[in-house]
Amino acid sequence: MAALERIASIAKTLAPSTASASVLNSAPLPREKVCLIGSGNWGSVIAKIVAENVKALPDFDDEVRMWVFEEMVNGERLSKIINDKHENVKYLPNIKLPTNVIAHPTLLTAVEGATLLVFVIPHQFVKGTCDQIIGSVRSDARAISLIKGVDVSKAGLRLISDVIKENLNGMDVSVLMGANIANEVAEEKFCEATVGYRNEANGLLWQKVFNKPYFKIAAVEDVEGVELCGALKNVVAIAAGLVDGLKYGDNTKAAIIRIGLSEMRRFSKHFHSSVKDNTFFESCGVADVITTCFGGRNRKVAEAHVLTGKSFEELEKELLNGQKLQGTLTAREIFMILEPKGLTKEFPLFTQVYRICYEGLDPKAIINL
Amino acid sequence: MAALERIASIAKTLAPSTASASVLNSAPLPREKVCLIGSGNWGSVIAKIVAENVKALPDFDDEVRMWVFEEMVNGERLSKIINDKHENVKYLPNIKLPTNVIAHPTLLTAVEGATLLVFVIPHQFVKGTCDQIIGSVRSDARAISLIKGVDVSKAGLRLISDVIKENLNGMDVSVLMGANIANEVAEEKFCEATVGYRNEANGLLWQKVFNKPYFKIAAVEDVEGVELCGALKNVVAIAAGLVDGLKYGDNTKAAIIRIGLSEMRRFSKHFHSSVKDNTFFESCGVADVITTCFGGRNRKVAEAHVLTGKSFEELEKELLNGQKLQGTLTAREIFMILEPKGLTKEFPLFTQVYRICYEGLDPKAIINL
Repeated sequence: MAALERIASIAKTLAPSTASASVLNSAPLPREKVCLIGSGNWGSVIAKIVAENVKALPDFDDEVRMWVFEEMVNGERLSKIINDKHENVKYLPNIKLPTNVIAHPTLLTAVEGATLLVFVIPHQFVKGTCDQIIGSVRSDARAISLIKGVDVSKAGLRLISDVIKENLNGMDVSVLMGANIANEVAEEKFCEATVGYRNEANGLLWQKVFNKPYFKIAAVEDVEGVELCGALKNVVAIAAGLVDGLKYGDNTKAAIIRIGLSEMRRFSKHFHSSVKDNTFFESCGVADVITTCFGGRNRKVAEAHVLTGKSFEELEKELLNGQKLQGTLTAREIFMILEPKGLTKEFPLFTQVYRICYEGLDPKAIINL
Repeated sequence: MAALERIASIAKTLAPSTASASVLNSAPLPREKVCLIGSGNWGSVIAKIVAENVKALPDFDDEVRMWVFEEMVNGERLSKIINDKHENVKYLPNIKLPTNVIAHPTLLTAVEGATLLVFVIPHQFVKGTCDQIIGSVRSDARAISLIKGVDVSKAGLRLISDVIKENLNGMDVSVLMGANIANEVAEEKFCEATVGYRNEANGLLWQKVFNKPYFKIAAVEDVEGVELCGALKNVVAIAAGLVDGLKYGDNTKAAIIRIGLSEMRRFSKHFHSSVKDNTFFESCGVADVITTCFGGRNRKVAEAHVLTGKSFEELEKELLNGQKLQGTLTAREIFMILEPKGLTKEFPLFTQVYRICYEGLDPKAIINL
């Protein structure tokens, strides 16, 4: 295997810009080329992992392009800093990026020639980004979404992966979710993640792109279940933070996490009958809920709400520089779906979180389920 | 309902020692009578709950007998203190027990006339206790086990509920497990628990005996799954404590808990094909694993093992007054089952916990799964 990789690597050096050359097989190997759309904290960690992996994969282009939303950092362009210092000094300081991560400030240049697109941007920018690149992406490209959240409009609830698919001519879109605090993954501390796929070959390909000994990827045929886990866990974390603030102890917190996980499962299955129970035993399910309910800012702000009596809006201004909390936003989006359908009684925890955050209900109501 | 209960209560007062009298129905109501076998920390909390509940249940005898292993506390007999002060000053201090909890130092007197037996004693005493009472228990009595652990002998692995059943003429035995730190339940902080039953009517009866607004009971037809959760979670807690000691962070801990939960599920299903996946989403599953992996002495001693380099044996002497840790014991019992069957590779976390505890393997191996 080592010898094979060496030969493939020599082949790459000899023909760096061709469509891959295999010295073992007369037909050229298909050459995959990864582009990351996004370069925040999580995007940069993922760039590091992907860039390490593609170097060892013979059928992959060495270069990993990363689209950087250009901004000035200490008088210099962030994309230039990343390419000069091999470090995202703003969003992932003190972590070296492999030299084959190439930052591009122009979206269309970044996606050029890419066969694998990794979406890791805030969810409000997804549609606009798709609209920009639709004329430039390869027709055989596949995508994966690492974006947590859902899209709610008058038409109802839509997955972000579906938004990408619909806006990129039906492109196959997988998802990656899991118990992954970005900085711990960057430090190569052991954890797991889950790829949810519709097309098995693509799911296994993404598994290969992300899998590392310290970042173990399981692939499951359940895009909807995996993606909804990533969005809904933040609502559960609000509930967990309330219980922390109320000092109800370990039993109550474990009960709230359990009830939250079971509402996540019920909600996902209600709206997508294909969702599998097993998905909730994966990293995207039980593990991510645990991590989010013990760390993370949703938990923290909810705890502060109980301890200080301040509104979530005030706390967002004070603690998050005005940024909106994902958990409260998602709780409202879900409530907007559940309420008109008369489903609030079937999701008491999600509903109480909404009422506590937006209707001034006493936080103690979190255990009146 | 309140009126009905009042009438039933008046009826009980008028005929306190008869076999129940209903003023609404000409046939007498069946009279259930609960006896607790055990009076430690958890047993005393359960006595409080059961005694509160039976007072409100018209078809139950008000008196709840509790067998107390007699010992002297400050020169007085513990059973007398409990009956005089309505407090188990040794094992559950500062919590008032209802006056209808009656402590009995004689096992045979305690079980006399009981139709519902609650076993809450250390598991090494189960068989001996059954042998003592077999001639005295009613033939129509049913039992429930609150005991965490398994019975391992040359014959293989046996559930404690099966040990009770086999030693009490095939009596129907349910189990109760969950995320229940005893003192938090005693303080009436909200939590949940799971009854696992074989006989549905009995399962629902036990649910009625234990359910409180602050102690929500779900009943599932899966004795084996529920009971194995209670035993196996302690092995997972050892792994979680090792990760805490190694300071691997929240992602790794969540991954270890997830892997542990999935080995619990696989193990239970391997040895009992009737075990249901859903059971692991109940309080006895995911919730209890969380509580045990964040609190509890198994986690704590394992963390100390990493931080001090001392053996588990030394730490048991230092921190637990020589008492044996449940998690290390169960890890060994499980290994004794897995190893001869060539199954260690299918249960890498359980196996690594055993090797770290008993074979001096480096704790870092806990993530080499």
